[in-house]
Amino acid sequence: MKENFFENIKTNESSLPERTAEQISKLIIERRLTSEDKLPSEFELAELLHVGRGTVREGIKLLVARNVLEIRRGKGTFIASNPGEVPDPLGFTYYPDQFRLALDLAEIRSQLEPWVARMAAEHATEKNLDELRESCSVVEQDILNEQDHSKNDVLFHIAIAKCTQNLVVPKLIPIITYAVTLFVSLTESRLRTETIIGHREILEAIRDKDSRRAEQAMAQHIEYNRALLEEIIRKLKKEQAESSGTSL
Amino acid sequence: MKENFFENIKTNESSLPERTAEQISKLIIERRLTSEDKLPSEFELAELLHVGRGTVREGIKLLVARNVLEIRRGKGTFIASNPGEVPDPLGFTYYPDQFRLALDLAEIRSQLEPWVARMAAEHATEKNLDELRESCSVVEQDILNEQDHSKNDVLFHIAIAKCTQNLVVPKLIPIITYAVTLFVSLTESRLRTETIIGHREILEAIRDKDSRRAEQAMAQHIEYNRALLEEIIRKLKKEQAESSGTSL
Repeated sequence: MKENFFENIKTNESSLPERTAEQISKLIIERRLTSEDKLPSEFELAELLHVGRGTVREGIKLLVARNVLEIRRGKGTFIASNPGEVPDPLGFTYYPDQFRLALDLAEIRSQLEPWVARMAAEHATEKNLDELRESCSVVEQDILNEQDHSKNDVLFHIAIAKCTQNLVVPKLIPIITYAVTLFVSLTESRLRTETIIGHREILEAIRDKDSRRAEQAMAQHIEYNRALLEEIIRKLKKEQAESSGTSL
Repeated sequence: MKENFFENIKTNESSLPERTAEQISKLIIERRLTSEDKLPSEFELAELLHVGRGTVREGIKLLVARNVLEIRRGKGTFIASNPGEVPDPLGFTYYPDQFRLALDLAEIRSQLEPWVARMAAEHATEKNLDELRESCSVVEQDILNEQDHSKNDVLFHIAIAKCTQNLVVPKLIPIITYAVTLFVSLTESRLRTETIIGHREILEAIRDKDSRRAEQAMAQHIEYNRALLEEIIRKLKKEQAESSGTSL
């Protein structure tokens, strides 16, 4: 089984469009282009890289597929806002055992997120706290309006991660929160009540710069969710086993 | 700034090839296709998805670019080994401040990897231990042969992560080890000596199923690397400041 990401690059680099994509990518890095910047024209790139315009076009398509570039309708091709960040970067949707994936992610959350909350309490700025309060209240509104709060719940955890001032921690949250709400019915009133109370406790501890309390509140919040997830997966597995039993 | 991965999906989904890619992806998941499996033909897919063969071809290209599919020369289009896993999934190469990125990653490693070593000591199988021993000796051979050991060093840390039996932990290692060796000169004899000793200590603790010792040995190993990284980055920043001073 191929486990190392870096090996993939080599394989892909073989084709001409792939090598062209690689060169355009280098150009973006060297010229420090950002999402404010338009990509040089196909014509310029073809001249610069000594390839045909068709090849440039194929190279651009590859970089659009990987969210390095984005096409803004009627405006042209630009650098993406978070270049190279892709939805589902580890291919979780293709995992055959989504139950196990959810439990393994819950284990990582239990380890990582209490630390994130502690770091957040230590490093949050006033601006971070404003965003966190806002994010907390958006989740509460979702819950009170009986709407699916899962997306805004992830954003609340990202807002906490931003308080750490670590560039990468906020990027890890969407990965480790994948699948957590996949099996937990969001209409379960237990979950909804705990979410409101748990989030408030975490928010208050971070606001008070009480790192120990923030860590504990987060640990409790994550453990609650993990226990609920385990309970629900046990139930679903039992149902699956029974239904496959009757079909024999 | 767009921070949430999931938002990207919506934007991309607008084009027909993108929607076709999405449908092919669903088909892979529903039929539980693996890297053993060939993708159905363009003709079949066009019939099934009610789109033209040109659109199917564009959709396939998108999924190849994202490493969901791979073209095996002379054999056809197959599901990739680790579908959806891409090199540099968080777009680190595009970060403008690589120094800060490296330090932020080192902070995450300090928090995560000692826990990984502890879990490894608790859950390693005999097969895991064989792989770990082998991986440890490959790194030592690199060092003794005065070759760049960074790639095999990452593989050693992945081998430890596999001992945890958690599906996701091994996938996080290539992310958090990115950039760590970017500034640390691998020819520094201090680093090379510490790597051999540190890796052996971790290996022995995991072999002895001594989770506390494994955690401590890993913490020490990571802290050593982190201190060295900080020292080198301080030096590089000072050099940069001086050279930009003289150019004024």
